[in-house]
Amino acid sequence: MSHTIREKTKLINRTRRIRGQIEAVERMLEDEKSCAELLQVIAGVRGAINGLMSEIIEDHILLHVADADLAQNDRNEGAAELIDVMRAYLK
Amino acid sequence: MSHTIREKTKLINRTRRIRGQIEAVERMLEDEKSCAELLQVIAGVRGAINGLMSEIIEDHILLHVADADLAQNDRNEGAAELIDVMRAYLK
Amino acid sequence: MSHTIREKTKLINRTRRIRGQIEAVERMLEDEKSCAELLQVIAGVRGAINGLMSEIIEDHILLHVADADLAQNDRNEGAAELIDVMRAYLK
Amino acid sequence: MSHTIREKTKLINRTRRIRGQIEAVERMLEDEKSCAELLQVIAGVRGAINGLMSEIIEDHILLHVADADLAQNDRNEGAAELIDVMRAYLK
Repeated sequence: MSHTIREKTKLINRTRRIRGQIEAVERMLEDEKSCAELLQVIAGVRGAINGLMSEIIEDHILLHVADADLAQNDRNEGAAELIDVMRAYLK
Repeated sequence: MSHTIREKTKLINRTRRIRGQIEAVERMLEDEKSCAELLQVIAGVRGAINGLMSEIIEDHILLHVADADLAQNDRNEGAAELIDVMRAYLK
Repeated sequence: MSHTIREKTKLINRTRRIRGQIEAVERMLEDEKSCAELLQVIAGVRGAINGLMSEIIEDHILLHVADADLAQNDRNEGAAELIDVMRAYLK
Repeated sequence: MSHTIREKTKLINRTRRIRGQIEAVERMLEDEKSCAELLQVIAGVRGAINGLMSEIIEDHILLHVADADLAQNDRNEGAAELIDVMRAYLK
């Protein structure tokens, strides 16, 4: 993934925040918090994962499918990978 | 959408099947079928809508983002539309 | 589904609106509207299906799992059906 | 959440596995793995989060909505919490 340093740092920070949320779920389970509280935090994790996925898909579209400098066979491969991801997701 | 006639017919047939499923839900509601039966049929409708969406997104990627003959500004526009759809979907 | 007449009418009207949206998708495909326009309408159908599903699940919880007058074996059956729906949905 | 020790341990182990998957995503980002590889792992995380959510909702239904020994006002509260979660999820 030929991301710029800046984009890479942003994605890593996003991923670390998700790790922090998961660790919070772990502590809540240990502290026997209520199902309702747990589900609220887990719904937040799910939203954060969707956000990360969305960002990486966007990068993939821009860098590996739409970029003006791509060779057509690389573009075709990028499109095929994107279609696989979409299908898996919308199944 | 510059689909071939064949692709167009396939998408219309898919959409008609979904309409048939929705009409079945309507009849089930009128006949006061159980929630459990209704939810099973509605889950099927949801899967069929996802399938239709997946097919149209695939067409969009191939025709409006990855096609070798696209002008770069059309390709960029196709990519931007695709990113909008993804974001709405993964929100 | 022992819904009241009022609740039943509301659900049927919701279902009819979804049918109308699906018929719009069919016409858009026949008129060869753009992928981007189609995907916007289909995302709307998906949201409407989710809303219908949500309403029926809510009815199911209130009538077949939580209702004070249920016999415990009916309550257990209602809970088991609900768990099946959730699992299918979150798969 | 009045889970048994066994159920609690199971949920904590599930959560730890999700943390491990997120740490793998972090390393993949640092090693500049391809978008396609990243998206595959992230789709796995998403599935695991859905599985955890599904398990906790199941516990909630059994312990806080359907349990034979619940006082009706606790049952009603459990049902209301469940409906909130469902609505947030199906939005």
